Amino acid sequence: MTPTSRTADHTVVVQGGVTTAQGFRAAGIAAGIKRPKPDGTAPLDLAVLISDTPATAAAVFTINKAQAAPVLVSREHLTRSGGVARAIIVNSGCANACTGDEGLANARVMASETARLAGCREDEVLVASTGVIGVGLPIENITSALPRGFAALGADQGPAAARAIMTTDPFPKEAAVRVVLDGREVAIGGMAKGSGMIEPMMATMLGFVTTDASVPQPLLQRALREAVNTTFNAITVDGECSTNDTVMLLANGRSGASVNEESYAAFLDGLTAVCRELALGIVRGGEGATKLVTVKVTGAASESEARVAAKAIANSLLVKTAIHGGDPNWGRLIAVAGRAGVAFELSRAVVTIGTVVLFQHGRPHDERAADAAAYLQGKDLTLSVDLGSGTASSTVWTCDLSAEYVKINADYRT
Amino acid sequence: MTPTSRTADHTVVVQGGVTTAQGFRAAGIAAGIKRPKPDGTAPLDLAVLISDTPATAAAVFTINKAQAAPVLVSREHLTRSGGVARAIIVNSGCANACTGDEGLANARVMASETARLAGCREDEVLVASTGVIGVGLPIENITSALPRGFAALGADQGPAAARAIMTTDPFPKEAAVRVVLDGREVAIGGMAKGSGMIEPMMATMLGFVTTDASVPQPLLQRALREAVNTTFNAITVDGECSTNDTVMLLANGRSGASVNEESYAAFLDGLTAVCRELALGIVRGGEGATKLVTVKVTGAASESEARVAAKAIANSLLVKTAIHGGDPNWGRLIAVAGRAGVAFELSRAVVTIGTVVLFQHGRPHDERAADAAAYLQGKDLTLSVDLGSGTASSTVWTCDLSAEYVKINADYRT
Repeated sequence: MTPTSRTADHTVVVQGGVTTAQGFRAAGIAAGIKRPKPDGTAPLDLAVLISDTPATAAAVFTINKAQAAPVLVSREHLTRSGGVARAIIVNSGCANACTGDEGLANARVMASETARLAGCREDEVLVASTGVIGVGLPIENITSALPRGFAALGADQGPAAARAIMTTDPFPKEAAVRVVLDGREVAIGGMAKGSGMIEPMMATMLGFVTTDASVPQPLLQRALREAVNTTFNAITVDGECSTNDTVMLLANGRSGASVNEESYAAFLDGLTAVCRELALGIVRGGEGATKLVTVKVTGAASESEARVAAKAIANSLLVKTAIHGGDPNWGRLIAVAGRAGVAFELSRAVVTIGTVVLFQHGRPHDERAADAAAYLQGKDLTLSVDLGSGTASSTVWTCDLSAEYVKINADYRT
Repeated sequence: MTPTSRTADHTVVVQGGVTTAQGFRAAGIAAGIKRPKPDGTAPLDLAVLISDTPATAAAVFTINKAQAAPVLVSREHLTRSGGVARAIIVNSGCANACTGDEGLANARVMASETARLAGCREDEVLVASTGVIGVGLPIENITSALPRGFAALGADQGPAAARAIMTTDPFPKEAAVRVVLDGREVAIGGMAKGSGMIEPMMATMLGFVTTDASVPQPLLQRALREAVNTTFNAITVDGECSTNDTVMLLANGRSGASVNEESYAAFLDGLTAVCRELALGIVRGGEGATKLVTVKVTGAASESEARVAAKAIANSLLVKTAIHGGDPNWGRLIAVAGRAGVAFELSRAVVTIGTVVLFQHGRPHDERAADAAAYLQGKDLTLSVDLGSGTASSTVWTCDLSAEYVKINADYRT
């Protein structure tokens, strides 16, 4: 690993998504899984992603113990194929979760029909679903629409695929970078969806990333885990973890550049940049969200304690509502840090909103509250809490909590 | 312990509060700590509670590491006095938290002035505060009002005291029972406040209970811990734990009846009944709450896992908003149970709303959704989840989450 390999110098952000890397084609079509829109048109609800040649595949899945059928099938396929994939098939509008044996059979049909059309083995197809829990998958709609999906495949259809995986998302999430590895240019691009972290018409977080680098499977899986840990796993909208959460990464090697231990850091930089952009997009598009909030915890006894405290702050209703109201309420930050179950020293703790220090040396600085309140009128905010107990730190991202969130989640199905 | 001593036969619920037990007097007055009401009148904000004779005292305090000055002083006094108290002094409108050395000095003055007027030692006075964090206590207002508070003391002034400790509470919380111990009648009564679990104008949970039984201090502390564990510690409004949370229990023995190992269970029954009533009152009066929700978790691998799952469900924004919207969304209950980090078996899990089984044997019963939706129109609801993993159970109480909660907590100070 070269000394500079961890800098962002290697990574250039470009416009793009899952078809930015060479040798990937995608499609997004309407298969009739979602209900028609008020104007009668059918919304996009089926995405196909193909690698023209077999790709090395890595994935991370929800830790929820109620795992949806597509999660079970994708796990099994990854094991059986030894981490090789040719296609990913994703539907929105139905999570195919809590659907028993029939749901499992439907997920398998989704994969086998895709494999037939792609001309690959069934275990080279990965499956993902998002939408309502506990409702049977309309599998005939999917199988009859699939040929149309394959006909629509194109290297310029990433945006359509990104739209087809949306549920309550207010906008599609795409991101891409170019990274130079040993003199060769590699592309990494992805798409994601997710508004709440979960469920009935409400989300599940899905992410799909492609690259034309060649990456040995163990290294690919390690890179995905590392990147997800500081990006998708560092965001929270409402503290939930869905039955379907999935991030998949395909590497087809078409660029001719290989990732090895030496170039790993540069690849990870690029992959992390793509995942972070997608993850922040999910938070910005959180249900009812009006502000993106970066929560930085420093002075923690360990990295895991820093993460615990940052997550507690990011998930606190009192913090999220204060931010929504533009209230520089440092007391809520202190109180949540104090109850987070981590080492915390009130006399050494520091609360900073933007760059305004509101609490330090055990005392408030409310004379600066007006400055902090002005800062909180912005849309992109940073809250920093030093726990006064060590040197470790962690950053997580969240959004504010608005009455709109309650409306979205209370009014569904009623 | 007699075989029937744990039944509720001993416990008779009566109307009353902190002055129902013999030998206790209380007062609630306006000391000018809170701002005047819109009509110009001064709200009650100072409560005095006196035992005419020295009482055995027990208390439980917040586990928040940012402990407020009154918590520190009350802890110290309980230790110094060996668990004896004559008076409790409580103010609302200011939490005296995050106020440094000056706050600590002010809490001490509150105690010493009360001791002087009560004619007892300083360490026989316990102190509690609730209200805004990080704002200095207007101690002169308190000391100059205290003589008026003592003049107002009466055995019929429990209701005034219960009003004086309120912050955003929509109504006062009082409860009392009579218990027969070895042929003698004993009274146990209390008051509580708390709407959110915490902070700036928003709460902190305070509870004060008195009894005219005679109880050895270690037994009194044990009874309080046991009762609090299944009542005040089993409720949640927003998952927060304040800098000031406190429950205090005074036993002055004026009834002539003693609690010993034999009559302990009957006493605990009565004490638990009072604490449960007060705790449920806090949930019913939760910020923006429109429904009281009992969450019962069964089939857990252990009691602590049952509690963890029940708390996860009770604190889930998606569950709380679904209940608010009257949506029988069993999928959210399954998803939260699945991600709670406890043993969970989807194929053996059962979700019941009221008495309507909506998920069992791995499959939904949405044909019963209309019955469940009708049930959810009520104000007092029970959600039951069997984790399918054991025989342990736990019950917690929460409220629904409304747009009103967001308004209350977003609009303060703006």
